[in-house]
Amino acid sequence: MRFAAFGEVMLRLSPPEYLLLDQTNDLRMDYTGTGVNIMANLAQFGYETSLVTVLPDNRLGQVAKAAIAKYGIKTDLLRFAHHHIGSYFAENGYGARPTQVTYQNRHHSSFGVSNHEAYDFEKVIAESDLVQICGISLSLTDDTRDAAHTLAKKTAEAGKKVCFDFNFRPSLNTEPDKIAFMREQYEKILPYCDIVFGSVRDLTDLLQLEMIGTEDELIIQFMDKYQIEWFAGTRRFSENKQKQQEGFLYSREEYAVSPKRELTILDRIGAGDAYAAAILTGYVERWRLQETVEFAAMNAVLAHTIHGDVPLTTKEQVFTVLENPGIDLIR
Amino acid sequence: MRFAAFGEVMLRLSPPEYLLLDQTNDLRMDYTGTGVNIMANLAQFGYETSLVTVLPDNRLGQVAKAAIAKYGIKTDLLRFAHHHIGSYFAENGYGARPTQVTYQNRHHSSFGVSNHEAYDFEKVIAESDLVQICGISLSLTDDTRDAAHTLAKKTAEAGKKVCFDFNFRPSLNTEPDKIAFMREQYEKILPYCDIVFGSVRDLTDLLQLEMIGTEDELIIQFMDKYQIEWFAGTRRFSENKQKQQEGFLYSREEYAVSPKRELTILDRIGAGDAYAAAILTGYVERWRLQETVEFAAMNAVLAHTIHGDVPLTTKEQVFTVLENPGIDLIR
Amino acid sequence: MRFAAFGEVMLRLSPPEYLLLDQTNDLRMDYTGTGVNIMANLAQFGYETSLVTVLPDNRLGQVAKAAIAKYGIKTDLLRFAHHHIGSYFAENGYGARPTQVTYQNRHHSSFGVSNHEAYDFEKVIAESDLVQICGISLSLTDDTRDAAHTLAKKTAEAGKKVCFDFNFRPSLNTEPDKIAFMREQYEKILPYCDIVFGSVRDLTDLLQLEMIGTEDELIIQFMDKYQIEWFAGTRRFSENKQKQQEGFLYSREEYAVSPKRELTILDRIGAGDAYAAAILTGYVERWRLQETVEFAAMNAVLAHTIHGDVPLTTKEQVFTVLENPGIDLIR
Amino acid sequence: MRFAAFGEVMLRLSPPEYLLLDQTNDLRMDYTGTGVNIMANLAQFGYETSLVTVLPDNRLGQVAKAAIAKYGIKTDLLRFAHHHIGSYFAENGYGARPTQVTYQNRHHSSFGVSNHEAYDFEKVIAESDLVQICGISLSLTDDTRDAAHTLAKKTAEAGKKVCFDFNFRPSLNTEPDKIAFMREQYEKILPYCDIVFGSVRDLTDLLQLEMIGTEDELIIQFMDKYQIEWFAGTRRFSENKQKQQEGFLYSREEYAVSPKRELTILDRIGAGDAYAAAILTGYVERWRLQETVEFAAMNAVLAHTIHGDVPLTTKEQVFTVLENPGIDLIR
Amino acid sequence: MRFAAFGEVMLRLSPPEYLLLDQTNDLRMDYTGTGVNIMANLAQFGYETSLVTVLPDNRLGQVAKAAIAKYGIKTDLLRFAHHHIGSYFAENGYGARPTQVTYQNRHHSSFGVSNHEAYDFEKVIAESDLVQICGISLSLTDDTRDAAHTLAKKTAEAGKKVCFDFNFRPSLNTEPDKIAFMREQYEKILPYCDIVFGSVRDLTDLLQLEMIGTEDELIIQFMDKYQIEWFAGTRRFSENKQKQQEGFLYSREEYAVSPKRELTILDRIGAGDAYAAAILTGYVERWRLQETVEFAAMNAVLAHTIHGDVPLTTKEQVFTVLENPGIDLIR
Amino acid sequence: MRFAAFGEVMLRLSPPEYLLLDQTNDLRMDYTGTGVNIMANLAQFGYETSLVTVLPDNRLGQVAKAAIAKYGIKTDLLRFAHHHIGSYFAENGYGARPTQVTYQNRHHSSFGVSNHEAYDFEKVIAESDLVQICGISLSLTDDTRDAAHTLAKKTAEAGKKVCFDFNFRPSLNTEPDKIAFMREQYEKILPYCDIVFGSVRDLTDLLQLEMIGTEDELIIQFMDKYQIEWFAGTRRFSENKQKQQEGFLYSREEYAVSPKRELTILDRIGAGDAYAAAILTGYVERWRLQETVEFAAMNAVLAHTIHGDVPLTTKEQVFTVLENPGIDLIR
Repeated sequence: MRFAAFGEVMLRLSPPEYLLLDQTNDLRMDYTGTGVNIMANLAQFGYETSLVTVLPDNRLGQVAKAAIAKYGIKTDLLRFAHHHIGSYFAENGYGARPTQVTYQNRHHSSFGVSNHEAYDFEKVIAESDLVQICGISLSLTDDTRDAAHTLAKKTAEAGKKVCFDFNFRPSLNTEPDKIAFMREQYEKILPYCDIVFGSVRDLTDLLQLEMIGTEDELIIQFMDKYQIEWFAGTRRFSENKQKQQEGFLYSREEYAVSPKRELTILDRIGAGDAYAAAILTGYVERWRLQETVEFAAMNAVLAHTIHGDVPLTTKEQVFTVLENPGIDLIR
Repeated sequence: MRFAAFGEVMLRLSPPEYLLLDQTNDLRMDYTGTGVNIMANLAQFGYETSLVTVLPDNRLGQVAKAAIAKYGIKTDLLRFAHHHIGSYFAENGYGARPTQVTYQNRHHSSFGVSNHEAYDFEKVIAESDLVQICGISLSLTDDTRDAAHTLAKKTAEAGKKVCFDFNFRPSLNTEPDKIAFMREQYEKILPYCDIVFGSVRDLTDLLQLEMIGTEDELIIQFMDKYQIEWFAGTRRFSENKQKQQEGFLYSREEYAVSPKRELTILDRIGAGDAYAAAILTGYVERWRLQETVEFAAMNAVLAHTIHGDVPLTTKEQVFTVLENPGIDLIR
Repeated sequence: MRFAAFGEVMLRLSPPEYLLLDQTNDLRMDYTGTGVNIMANLAQFGYETSLVTVLPDNRLGQVAKAAIAKYGIKTDLLRFAHHHIGSYFAENGYGARPTQVTYQNRHHSSFGVSNHEAYDFEKVIAESDLVQICGISLSLTDDTRDAAHTLAKKTAEAGKKVCFDFNFRPSLNTEPDKIAFMREQYEKILPYCDIVFGSVRDLTDLLQLEMIGTEDELIIQFMDKYQIEWFAGTRRFSENKQKQQEGFLYSREEYAVSPKRELTILDRIGAGDAYAAAILTGYVERWRLQETVEFAAMNAVLAHTIHGDVPLTTKEQVFTVLENPGIDLIR
Repeated sequence: MRFAAFGEVMLRLSPPEYLLLDQTNDLRMDYTGTGVNIMANLAQFGYETSLVTVLPDNRLGQVAKAAIAKYGIKTDLLRFAHHHIGSYFAENGYGARPTQVTYQNRHHSSFGVSNHEAYDFEKVIAESDLVQICGISLSLTDDTRDAAHTLAKKTAEAGKKVCFDFNFRPSLNTEPDKIAFMREQYEKILPYCDIVFGSVRDLTDLLQLEMIGTEDELIIQFMDKYQIEWFAGTRRFSENKQKQQEGFLYSREEYAVSPKRELTILDRIGAGDAYAAAILTGYVERWRLQETVEFAAMNAVLAHTIHGDVPLTTKEQVFTVLENPGIDLIR
Repeated sequence: MRFAAFGEVMLRLSPPEYLLLDQTNDLRMDYTGTGVNIMANLAQFGYETSLVTVLPDNRLGQVAKAAIAKYGIKTDLLRFAHHHIGSYFAENGYGARPTQVTYQNRHHSSFGVSNHEAYDFEKVIAESDLVQICGISLSLTDDTRDAAHTLAKKTAEAGKKVCFDFNFRPSLNTEPDKIAFMREQYEKILPYCDIVFGSVRDLTDLLQLEMIGTEDELIIQFMDKYQIEWFAGTRRFSENKQKQQEGFLYSREEYAVSPKRELTILDRIGAGDAYAAAILTGYVERWRLQETVEFAAMNAVLAHTIHGDVPLTTKEQVFTVLENPGIDLIR
Repeated sequence: MRFAAFGEVMLRLSPPEYLLLDQTNDLRMDYTGTGVNIMANLAQFGYETSLVTVLPDNRLGQVAKAAIAKYGIKTDLLRFAHHHIGSYFAENGYGARPTQVTYQNRHHSSFGVSNHEAYDFEKVIAESDLVQICGISLSLTDDTRDAAHTLAKKTAEAGKKVCFDFNFRPSLNTEPDKIAFMREQYEKILPYCDIVFGSVRDLTDLLQLEMIGTEDELIIQFMDKYQIEWFAGTRRFSENKQKQQEGFLYSREEYAVSPKRELTILDRIGAGDAYAAAILTGYVERWRLQETVEFAAMNAVLAHTIHGDVPLTTKEQVFTVLENPGIDLIR
C-alpha cells in the first residue's frame, strides 16, 4: 500500500522545558504539518509513503527534506521553489497554562504561492494508492486551493482513494464571508473523497447540514450524499478535571466507538494526525471498525505523550500498551 | 499608574529538568526577588514600574540590570556599589520530593550593606504613585531595615501609597529573640502602610494580636489599628493529595474569597508575588474585591506553571483562562 | 559498618526531556547498576561503601571510576581489564507511553568475561561487614556465575553477612531450560545468604516452592529452609489509574508492611535499589521492622522522583518527608 | 546625547557550536539588525538610545521588545502591527568554510509593510539628537523607502543630525535596473545626511561618481557635494592567510587611518555596526579623528570575537585592550 | 550513477565543546562509518546511494536507519539482525591535545557477526553501478572478511565497478602475524578492484612491494599488477606548525597533485572519506585528473571544518570556495 | 607518596561557547581552586591526594565534596561549617577579547572565616608526605593566614615537606600598605618551605630582594636564604602574536629550562597549577631537572587546551605528546 499526502511543511520552533519565548535563547527546530505527521506515522507502521509539497529552494528546503527523509517518508515527489517556509512558534503549556501557538507568514510560503502547475500530479497518482489532502490547503491561498481541487479530482478520476480532513482554521481565511466561502470549497472537494476526518460540528457549522434526527443519522446522511466510505473523528471530555478522549468511526453500514481514554499530555499538537494515520491503517488492512477505532484511539493517546507534532509510534508499541494496561517499563 | 519596589535582587541558580545539583554541571541563571517579581508582572500588565535596589558595581550588576530591563522594569533608580549579589540555588522538586533552596551569603550583598544613604528616595517618591516594600528587608541587616523604614515614612509623608508584605524568614534573623525583635520592626512600619499582604498567622504569631473572635474580626481589628486599606493573602489546602489554593482580600468594609483552584506546579517559587501583583492591579484599576481576588488567584495558579520566580503572565492570558476553563491550546 | 557490592557497572544513555532516540542527537551519560545504586545510596546515608567489579582498561573505565567516586563509593576494590562496558539506552516514558530500555552487548563486557580470578575476594571480605551480590550475575555468563558463587561462599565462611536479590532477567538467559537452570543457581547461592530481596513469585516460579498455605507461610518456609534473616520486597497497585506501592519485610519471627504510597514517577529505573539500600540501613541500625519498612518505602517513593537509576536521597530528606506530608519547599 | 535608529529588527536563528542546520535540532534565537546593533553598542557605551521600527503585534513582537530592552535600548518608540518578523538562519563558518546566511521573507515583515504613517516621527525627532537610518530600508519595499526618506528629511529640517550607511544588498532589490534605481534613492537621501558610512566602491559603483584623482579626492568631492561632515568605513586585507582590517575616517578637512588589526573571528556578522557605533561615539564626544578611528577599529576587532550580531563591548574594555596589547585575562 | 557501500555503521558518542568524558554528562550521538560517510557525501552531491550493512534488530537499528535516511542514503538494502552496534567515543582534541578515540566492542556487532548469507548481494549489484568496500571489513572478523570477498568477486563478475580502500587498523587484528595475514586478504580482493584509496606505505608495508625506483613507478607497478584504474590518497605536511595536506591521483597513464591546502581542523575524523567521495565524483563525471584532485582536496579541507565524521559538503559549496579564496560569508 | 593541599574551594560559573553573561541563561558549574587543581592532577598521575579545607555545611558543601571525589581526591580531611562558598564567574575570552573573571564574596566564605581551630592538622600531617599551601590564603583573611602559618610550621616540624606558591592577588588585600604587609607574611612562612613556585618579580617586588647580579644569582640567593630545595615557575613570550611559554626549575646546584612551547588556549585559568603538579611529580619521582621541567611545561601546554581550571591530563598523555610532536588523533 502506497500513501501520498498533499500539504504544507512548516517549521516549528519551540523553547525547551515549558519555558516561555522570553525566558530563553534556545529553540528546538522541527519540520511538521498534517501531511508530514500522517505520512511519518504510516512509515513507522511499515508503509511506503510520500509527501507532495513545495519547499524553499535554499538551505531550509534542504534541511526540511533531510528531516522528512529521517521520518522514513520518500522525498522524490518534493518540489523546490521560492525562498520562504511557513513557520510557527509553540510555547508548550503546563497545567492551567495553555500551549500558545504563534504563526509566522504562511500565505507567502513556497507552498502557499504554488498552484497545480508546480507539481507533477500524474506521477503522484501513478505512484500512490491513496492520497491524503489536508483541508488547510483550502483555507490558505487561491494557489493552494487550486492545487488541492486539481489533485482530488485527478486522483478520483484515476480510481485511486482520496482522504480528506476538514481542519478548518478560521484565522487563515480573510474572505468577508468565511463560512460561505469555505462551504463552497468543501462542497467542491467532497464528491471526490472516500475517507473523511471531521466532527459533527463541521457538518452543521461548515457544511450547514441540518440536524434533524440524531448525530448518527446526520453523519450517515452526509456520507450518503457524498458517497463517503469512512468518516472518523474524536470527541474530548473532561471528568474530574481529567481530560479524556474517545474515537468514533462510521462506515455507511455500521459504526464503532472506542473506550474513553485518559490523556496525559506532553505535547498537544499533532495527536489528531496520529488518529488519522491509525484509521487509514485499519482501512488498508481491512480491520474491523471496532478494532480500528480502538487502535486509533490508543495511537492518539500515545501521540499526546511524544514531543513535537510527529507521532513516532509503532504498531507493536500500540498493541503492547493495549494488551498490557498500565505497563510502564519495557526491557 | 507608576509603581516602584524596594527589595533585594537575587541570583537564582537552578539545575535543568528536575536534576539535583550533584547530577549535572549545568545551571540556569535568573535574577529574581520579591520586588523584581511584582514589578515584572505589573510591567507585563502594562504599567510603568521601577526597581529601587543596590546592585554590585561589576559585571554581575550589569548583567542583573539587563535582566531587569528585559522584564520591562525601568532601571534608572538602580544604584551600583560593592561587589556581591545574594544568591540561591533551587533544586526543583517533583512529586513527593520537595524543592530544596540553598541560600548563599545574603547579609554581605550590595543590597544588604546599603542603608538609606545609598538611595535617592526623593526621586523614587517623585516618580512613583505606589511603593512596594518587601518585608524581607526588615529581617536582613541594620542597613536594610534603616532603608526600608526611611522609605516607608517618606513615601507616606509624601502622600503616596505604601504596600508591604510580611514575608518573615526566620532563617535570616540572628537576633536572640527574633519574634520580639521583628514585632518591633513590623509595628514601626505598619503605620505607614496602605496595602498589606500576609496571613492570620502573621497577625497572631508575629504581631501577637490576640484572637478573640473570628479570623475576620481579627483582620478588621488589625486593619483598623494601622489604618490599612486592603489586606490580602492566600490559603492552601490539600484534597485527595491534590494541592489547592484560594485567595482572600479584605477592605475595611467587606471581603472576598476566590474559588479554590487546583495547583499544577512547575515552579513553586514566586507565585505569591504574582498574587500580590494582581491584587495591586485590582487596587489601581478600582476593580471590585471579588473581581480582583478571582483575577489574583488565577494569576497565582498560572505563576505556578511558569519556570522561575518571575510571573510572566499577561492580563489577557489570565482572562482567557478564567473565561475558558480547561483550554489547552491557543492558536 | 562497611558495605561492599558485587555487580556490573553499566553505561546508561538517555535522551533528554522525554524525547525519543530518533528525535535528538543529545544523550545523557550515567554509570549505574544494582551494586552502584545500592552502594551510592548507602554512601549518601553516611556509610562506607565499596564496589567490586571489573571495568574496561581504557578511558571508559576511568570515566566510570570517576562517576563511582563522585557517588562517595570507595574505588580501591575496582579492577580494570578488557575493553568493553555493558550499556543500555533508556527512552523515558510519559503517561501511557512506557519507558523503553534497549540493551547493548552485556555478555562480552569486562565484567561479563571475568571470573573469580579477576578479583581479590580476600581483600573484599576483609574490608567489608556485609556483601551485596546482585542476582543478575547468576544470569549473565559462566564467568560471572563463578565469581558470584565464589564470593558468596567465601563471605559466609568468613562470618560476614551476605545480601542477595533475585533480580531475574529472562532476556539474559539463553539456556534451553532457563527456569531449571536458574533454580539450580539460586539453590546453590541461597544457603550462604542472610538478607534476600524478592517476591512471592520468585519463590513459586523460580524456586518452585509449593504454595500450600498463605503467602506468609510460604515466605517463612523459604526463610527457614535457607536460614534467611530478613526477606523483603515491594508490591505495586493501581487504584483509579494512580500507581501505588507498599513495602514488606519479614524476619523469621514477625513481619511489617508499609502504608501504600502513591508514586509520581520521574524515572522508573533503580527505585527497587533504593528500597534495598534503606532496608539494609534498618538492618545495620537495628531499627524495628515497621520503622525500617516505612523508611524504605518512602525512600523508594523519593527514588522515583529522581532522574537516573542512582537514588541520591539522604536519611534527613526521607525523615523530613515522612514527618511533613505534602511539604513542597524547603529553604 | 540621545540617539535613535530607524531599521528592521530581524530574528536570527543559529545552530550551536559550528553545527550545520541538518546536524541538530537546536537553534539559538537572537533579535538583531543594523539599528539594534548600533543602538545596543551605544547603550553599552553609556548613551540614551531608542529604536524606531514596527514589530509584529503578537508574542514575537513582545519577545523582540524584551530583547531590545535587555540591550539597554529604550522601547517607547516601538510600534506593533501585523504578524510577521523578518528572519534569517546563520550557519557559522569555520576555517575555509564560510558562514552561510539564509534569509526568510523580509518583504512582508511588519517593518517591510509599514510606511511613514505607521510612526510618530515628530516624537522621534523631539526625543533624539542624532537619527541613524539603515540603508537597507531603501532596498526593501516602497513602504520602507517612504518611511526612510520622510524621516531623513524631517530630521534634517528639525536641525538634528542624520547618520546613514549605504549597506547595499543586491539580493533584496527586484527592480529591473537595480543600480539606477538605488542611485536615485541614495541621491534623494544624501542631502539630508551628516555622517555617512560606506566605501569607495559605493561612491563609484552605486553613485557612479567618476574617479578622476585619488581615492581621497573622490571622497572629499562626494562629501562636498552632499555637505557630509564625516565619512567612514573599513578596509579588509589578507596577509599570509591572516585576515586584517583597518578603519578610515574623513572630515572635510582631514582624515585618519587606524593601524591594521588582525581578526580572530568568532562571529562575522555585525562587526561593521560596532565600527559605526564607535565612530558615532567619537563624533558626539568630539574626539580627534585619529583617536576615534583607532577606538572604532579596535571595537570592530572585539565585535568579531563576540557571538551574534550585537556588539556588547564597553568603552572601558576597548581602552583596556588598546592599552594592554596581548592581555588575555582580567580579574 | 548509482553507488552502494559495504561497511559497518558505528555509533559515535562525543562530549560537546572540547570537553573530556569526565567533565560532562552530555554526549552527542551520531551514526557513522566509512560507508556512511562516502555515501552521504555522494548523496549531497546529487547521486543515488545505498548502504549495505547489518544493523541491530532493535531500537538502535531503527534509529541508525533514520539517521542514514536523513543523509539522503537509500535504506532498502539494509538488513536487521542481532542486538549490538559497534560504538566509539571521540573526545575532540584542541591545540596540542590530540583527539582521543575509544572503541567499544566491534567484533560482536550485528555487522561483525554477519557473513555473506546475511545479505542479498544479487540485489545490491543489480541496483548499483559502483560498489565501495571498506577495508576495515577485512580486519574485523571472519564473517566480515567472507562478506567483503564475496561481494567484491560478485560485483566484478557482474561487470560493475569495485572501489576499495586499505584503511588498515592494526588494533582490530588479533592474528599472531597481522601483516602476513592482511597481505593475504588484500591480495585476494585487489584483483576485483577498479579504484583504490591508499598510500605508498600501504604498498610497501602491507603488500610488501619492493620500492625499486620512484614512488610513482611503484604505484604504476601496483596498478598494473592488479589492473587498477585509479589510485588516490592524501599526504600531510607540517610547516611552521601549520598542518597542510595535498591530494594525489593516478590513472595508469598520468597523475595529478593538488596544491597544498592549510587545514583548520574542527573535527579530524572522516575527512579521508570526503576525499574519496570527491574522487569518485570526478571518476563518474569523467573529470580530468587535475580537476578531480583539486576538487577532492578542497572537499577534504572543508570536511575538516564540519563536526562529526559525515562530510555534509555540496558541490556548489566546494566550487564557491575554490573560486573565491578567503570568502567567509555567503548571503 | 601522599600529597595534601590546603586552600579554598571555589565555585566557578561560566557561560558556554564563549558567550557573555548577558547573552545566555546557561552556566557551567565547576569546583576549583589551586589546591583542587594540583591535587586533582596528581591524582590523575596516580598519587594519593587529599584536600584540607572548610566547605559550607549545606547542599553546596555536599556537591563540592562529590566534585572533589570525582577528581580522585580523598575527602576525609574535609571539614563542613558555615554556609557560604566563594565563587567567581569566568567569561571565556576569544582572540583579542580577554577572559573576564568576576569574583563574588570570598572573605566570608566557609574557608575565609576558618582559622587553624577548624582543622585537625595533626591528622593532615600524619597522613601526608608533602603539604601544598596556596599563597592566596595569606592574602585572604586573618583566619586563613592563621591557618596557613600554623600548618606550615607544624608540617615542617614534623619533618614533612612543605610546598608554597606566591600567587599574590592584589585585589584581595585591603590593608593600606599591601606590599609591606604581604612581605611580612611571606617572610614568616618561607623558612618552613621546601619547594616554592614563583617568579623573579615575586622576589624583587614582594620580598624586595635586591637584584645585584643576574636573575640566576638572585634566585640562588633567595633559595639559600630560606633553604629552599626547588624553585620553579614559567615565563611567557609573544612572538609574531603567537603566545609561547617556557618553564624553569632551580635546585640549589643547577637549573633547567624547557623549550619554548606555543600555547593554543581553550581555557587560560589553572594552567599554572598543572605546571606545579608536574614539578611535584618530578620531585617525588626524583627525575632529573631537565626531564622534570620539560614534562611540566608540556603538562601546562595541555592544561591550556582543557576546559575549566582542573588539569585532567595523565602522565601517559603528556609523554605521548612529547614523543609524537604534532599528533592529533589517538585511536
